[in-house]
Amino acid sequence: MSWREELAVVVDALNPDKVFILTDSGVAPLFRHDEETTIMVAAGEGSKSFGTLEKVLGELVWRGATRRSLLVNIGGGMVSDLGGLAAGLFMRGIRHVNIPTTLLAMADAAIGGKTAIDFCGLKNQVGLFKMPERVITDSSWLSTLPWPLVRDGLAEVVKTAMLDGRECYEACLELPDRPDAASLGPLALRAAAFKQEIVDRDPREQGLRRILNLGHTAGHAFESLAARRGVTLSHGEAVAHGIAVALALSRKLLNASPALLDVYAARILLRFYNPLPTAVRDADALMEIMAHDKKNPAYGKISFILLRDVGEPETMVADAAEIKQALADVILIRDKR
Amino acid sequence: MSWREELAVVVDALNPDKVFILTDSGVAPLFRHDEETTIMVAAGEGSKSFGTLEKVLGELVWRGATRRSLLVNIGGGMVSDLGGLAAGLFMRGIRHVNIPTTLLAMADAAIGGKTAIDFCGLKNQVGLFKMPERVITDSSWLSTLPWPLVRDGLAEVVKTAMLDGRECYEACLELPDRPDAASLGPLALRAAAFKQEIVDRDPREQGLRRILNLGHTAGHAFESLAARRGVTLSHGEAVAHGIAVALALSRKLLNASPALLDVYAARILLRFYNPLPTAVRDADALMEIMAHDKKNPAYGKISFILLRDVGEPETMVADAAEIKQALADVILIRDKR
Repeated sequence: MSWREELAVVVDALNPDKVFILTDSGVAPLFRHDEETTIMVAAGEGSKSFGTLEKVLGELVWRGATRRSLLVNIGGGMVSDLGGLAAGLFMRGIRHVNIPTTLLAMADAAIGGKTAIDFCGLKNQVGLFKMPERVITDSSWLSTLPWPLVRDGLAEVVKTAMLDGRECYEACLELPDRPDAASLGPLALRAAAFKQEIVDRDPREQGLRRILNLGHTAGHAFESLAARRGVTLSHGEAVAHGIAVALALSRKLLNASPALLDVYAARILLRFYNPLPTAVRDADALMEIMAHDKKNPAYGKISFILLRDVGEPETMVADAAEIKQALADVILIRDKR
Repeated sequence: MSWREELAVVVDALNPDKVFILTDSGVAPLFRHDEETTIMVAAGEGSKSFGTLEKVLGELVWRGATRRSLLVNIGGGMVSDLGGLAAGLFMRGIRHVNIPTTLLAMADAAIGGKTAIDFCGLKNQVGLFKMPERVITDSSWLSTLPWPLVRDGLAEVVKTAMLDGRECYEACLELPDRPDAASLGPLALRAAAFKQEIVDRDPREQGLRRILNLGHTAGHAFESLAARRGVTLSHGEAVAHGIAVALALSRKLLNASPALLDVYAARILLRFYNPLPTAVRDADALMEIMAHDKKNPAYGKISFILLRDVGEPETMVADAAEIKQALADVILIRDKR
């Protein structure tokens, strides 16, 4: 079923009085839409702001949205983050549906109800948990994506596959060098279904859901340091290297097979992602950022999701020496290339 | 137990890493507080705005609040509405405690997790449901209140008592002409406990909780019309007259005893509240506003909480002729005085 057909079915079931679409200036040209009911924001992370949130809420007021209205977010993670938050706040909550158009949003951002805007230079600092009524995944959107956007989402697909099990992960390892919509579609759908299962079992991230942070402890540190030093680093590159750090730690702390990291490095990291910029290879600065991560159990205790094997995640606290060694291992992999 | 003692017990149980206080410029002079951990906003409904919300969230970032921090809202309904929303949004939700300092906040606003700011000239248009960890009610704050603020809260106390049962309502009827903290304290505590019970049974206002809207269908219409026409009308006056409208409709639609309205008018409405300003006595304009109320089951169907008797609320849809007659009855009561 195309997203339009599925949306028609969902709207029929939810029976809203009015349907509004939120999208961004990059996605809007990709589909037919009605100006009357479409709220448009500028493409880019910059729209995850209080200013844009107010604009979206103001448009809902202005266009006569009520408690029984439905907001349909069509776009990447920015659109579902912003639109989910607006839906959560308008009249203390109206229903919303997400239609992800990027691989990253399909595999991750559109699912699970984490909504947010950035604030005071901090990513996702202001937001709430607001579950979409439905996430409509149509892999035909993937053919609209340029390679850098595919690569960004691929890191999340691979992450999910490593948590999911051997079969999914093997499919990722077998991807062609420039995967297209046809090869990515089934993986995106499977990643979405796996994340949805985890989220249904732990909607508020009290426990199980934390496994989805695989690769994100070091990944977020790479991203923060890059931002602080004015260096470009995509989310995909950050997470792909973060997964490698987790696998190096898994070898050390969980006796995971060395092949786990070696195969990942050869088939995913080195094949799809650029090396980390020099400015980001600063173990002390990375340690400092990880120590501040809001997900740690207490200040300075840095917790990681590790893998005993594919499909066997575990939460572990690592010490500074272990983390520095893992960072060095990952940088070495790249430099040996 | 004083609020300070109770707060110490609550903080001990919640074990936050840091405690921040939110208060306003009117309440701050009434208690000792530490500038380092106190966030202050201007007193008045004007602070229920996006600008002030951003300020509060910015102060939390600036002062180093984390996911494990606690926000304590000390003030009237504005402070708990704004602070509850900020707590709900900061890092997707930190814990908060409300310490209401007005009769209105004790009996109503601080309880039940409805948080909001005003937006585009619409009251409580943007907000969310975010339950406080605890509401600490200390009636010694009541001695700090000027009579107009007491009167504002009294309408909510009377409303709650009418839903609660004969005993509480009788206590309201027996209040002295200028009730002080000593006579209001027990009623405030009982109203708070009653509302908490209702909210615990229906946290998201799916059904039962709607009975708390007694007097508010017409009450909100009076308030909106007054605002639109630039006339001063307090929340207490609006709700007190709204209750009278509900009682007039109850007589007509539920065969409630005429004494219900007569006793209420003599002992509460005429004794404590000023007549409605002429500008607000416009049945057609009031009907139009009520037809737009977001709480109606569908556009134009105006639903009311009515009373078969004290303690026996029922939801009923009334038609235009019945509502106009009830409005006329209430205005007549006042004019006969």
